Amino acid sequence: MPLLVMKFGGTSVADLDRIANAAEKVRREVERGYDVIVIVSAMSGKTNELVGWVEQTSPLYDAREYDAVVSSGENVTAGLMALRLQEMGVPARSWQGWQVPIKTTSAHSAARFVDIPRENLDAKFEEGMKVAVIAGFQGLSEENRITTLGRGGSDTTAVAFAAAFGAERCDIYTDVDGVYTTDPRISDKARKLDKIAFEEMLELASLGAKVLQTRSVELAMRYNVRLRVLSSFEDTDENSGTLVCGEDEIMESKVVSGVAYSRDEAKMTLVTVEDRPGIASAIFGPLAEAGVNVDMIVQNISERQADHEAKVTDMTFSCPINQVARAQKAMEEAKARGDIAYDDLIVDTDVAKVSVVGIGMRSHAGVAAEMFKALSAENINIKVISTSEIKISVLIDRKYMELAVQALHDAFELEKSA
Amino acid sequence: MPLLVMKFGGTSVADLDRIANAAEKVRREVERGYDVIVIVSAMSGKTNELVGWVEQTSPLYDAREYDAVVSSGENVTAGLMALRLQEMGVPARSWQGWQVPIKTTSAHSAARFVDIPRENLDAKFEEGMKVAVIAGFQGLSEENRITTLGRGGSDTTAVAFAAAFGAERCDIYTDVDGVYTTDPRISDKARKLDKIAFEEMLELASLGAKVLQTRSVELAMRYNVRLRVLSSFEDTDENSGTLVCGEDEIMESKVVSGVAYSRDEAKMTLVTVEDRPGIASAIFGPLAEAGVNVDMIVQNISERQADHEAKVTDMTFSCPINQVARAQKAMEEAKARGDIAYDDLIVDTDVAKVSVVGIGMRSHAGVAAEMFKALSAENINIKVISTSEIKISVLIDRKYMELAVQALHDAFELEKSA
Repeated sequence: MPLLVMKFGGTSVADLDRIANAAEKVRREVERGYDVIVIVSAMSGKTNELVGWVEQTSPLYDAREYDAVVSSGENVTAGLMALRLQEMGVPARSWQGWQVPIKTTSAHSAARFVDIPRENLDAKFEEGMKVAVIAGFQGLSEENRITTLGRGGSDTTAVAFAAAFGAERCDIYTDVDGVYTTDPRISDKARKLDKIAFEEMLELASLGAKVLQTRSVELAMRYNVRLRVLSSFEDTDENSGTLVCGEDEIMESKVVSGVAYSRDEAKMTLVTVEDRPGIASAIFGPLAEAGVNVDMIVQNISERQADHEAKVTDMTFSCPINQVARAQKAMEEAKARGDIAYDDLIVDTDVAKVSVVGIGMRSHAGVAAEMFKALSAENINIKVISTSEIKISVLIDRKYMELAVQALHDAFELEKSA
Repeated sequence: MPLLVMKFGGTSVADLDRIANAAEKVRREVERGYDVIVIVSAMSGKTNELVGWVEQTSPLYDAREYDAVVSSGENVTAGLMALRLQEMGVPARSWQGWQVPIKTTSAHSAARFVDIPRENLDAKFEEGMKVAVIAGFQGLSEENRITTLGRGGSDTTAVAFAAAFGAERCDIYTDVDGVYTTDPRISDKARKLDKIAFEEMLELASLGAKVLQTRSVELAMRYNVRLRVLSSFEDTDENSGTLVCGEDEIMESKVVSGVAYSRDEAKMTLVTVEDRPGIASAIFGPLAEAGVNVDMIVQNISERQADHEAKVTDMTFSCPINQVARAQKAMEEAKARGDIAYDDLIVDTDVAKVSVVGIGMRSHAGVAAEMFKALSAENINIKVISTSEIKISVLIDRKYMELAVQALHDAFELEKSA
């Protein structure tokens, strides 16, 4: 029997009506001949309520108890979804993480999958169960305690089940109807993509297109699980949404698939740093230890070099805006220890990152030049550039962000399909 | 290490403040040198919310899914209570039913205990855990699914743990401060009892004194678990509340310990029934099959006997008022089948039951006479009488119920301690 994994997030199971609506989508897949594994989140608002109670009860809470409390939200949805399906005549039952059992590490609130044994579910499928409704976001540690997976845990649960059970596809039902060439709120020319490659989706996700959690896409890529993103609020069929898949499934691809952006960036510049071997490690070692996620790095020759006897440089990097204070502290401490020397630390929190992404770049030259030309035509100054095999990112003044996204969307003609 | 079981019901853990208050009571027992097993209910209102969702989703719900959903309320309280205790510096952790594991039958929503193995908790107590917080009301079936225990399940969980772990005492914290000689709302002379025997408590519980569920008292009596009922809303010490214990612990007992009542009674009389061997079975067999809980039964010679050639009688019985329709139907069907014959079926729903209870009755004659005299002095007509070893019950007009309770409380001088 072919098997499908379907995942419904918090807004898709927000109340009993929406649970019924989601169940109807499941029923249709059963009618098409699939066995189905459904992954559910907590009804929206429930997890926040539980987290609030835990934090009020114990500000420095024991993560094991946090997990035990917070995981109950998903358990409720799983039971209600199974009941709704039974009411529609579909043989369904709920599974809590420990019943499967979903084996994870003991890193509470940030656990990772160790194993999802198939025996228990397979036995029930053989007995006639058509739908297994799994409480997402949770697992069981070796110590027999409930774990949770941290952010995006339900998407990741879905992909992990799809991999373990060799599912034909993993459908992620959410509140958007697919992946777009860019954010439709910024460009009304944004177009829904029918297909997108894992690598592209990864770049888009990590660049702030929040349709899928990075971790779930990584897992899908590793196990080659075909992911589909589609809306739980619209009528959907086999062709709805966007398929995230391997490159081999994407016959004809445009050079650029999408334009992503991120507002939560900050640019930091260490002015007049000694330009010597090991200086990068002396700077970025302490930042990594302080938990700063450094993104782009540029080393540029200081204009003031002539004033100094020793060889000096300026070192610029970007990081999430909420890590600026941590980064500053790490740098000042390194300076105080004498590990590095610099004249000044300039922080610019008024920047944004805009990126073009596309697997077609691998075989096409000139994408960067075209990008810089489009930005230049709008008089947008580029502060930092970084490139990867399938992505070019620039840091610009935040006030030009929307303009840059629109200009790039036009320049690469993303409103037209391939 | 001496061990104590403490149970907190829904109103005692209604919100975070009350959970903190309950945790404080637990902490004090730990300071007195006890290891503690705490049994918690769901925060009040939560179970009703969950039950509502289940019933709306599936009116004829699968009890296994019902149990999976509804049990989550207790899991949340258990985690929060453990966190609160940790915050107070008490080494505590939560245990869901399947983690203990609390083994039950597979009778979902009405499961019974099969076994509570001590290994897992004992190991943690040895490692330094001082408090195990157990989610009440739930267990695990042989099929590895969550069960719930039905009404009074949390009290029963507490007693079962006390029995399994040989606890010194099982303290049931509730919203009243003990067991009274009668309902204080009916007699302002009602006095709190320091001790009461299991048998007396059983009679009082089943007669409508709703402090403890009958099932938990039965279990406590069988395993000789000393139960204490006390208030979670007052300062309490070793002498608070009422101890429910074996007769041997009650040195000096009054003849009557308490006066109980029940408003939810109905009296039914089958008029002119043939008085022959087997007639009782022909009447009460069908009633039992119809699920009618017949309580008192009286057979009295009909005044109309002279009018008949055959020997006839009237048969009167009482049952809960909400089972009258069912009882009528069962009788009419038995008559239609020709199994019984009667002239009329008279239903009187305007009655109440008043009872005096006391283990001292076993060794004292004349209690019934004294009871009837007290009622007669108030001109209260007795409709039905039934007696057991430690209880005398009468059915009277409901409008005299309060008067009867007060008169009996006075007659047996229950306002004075033994």
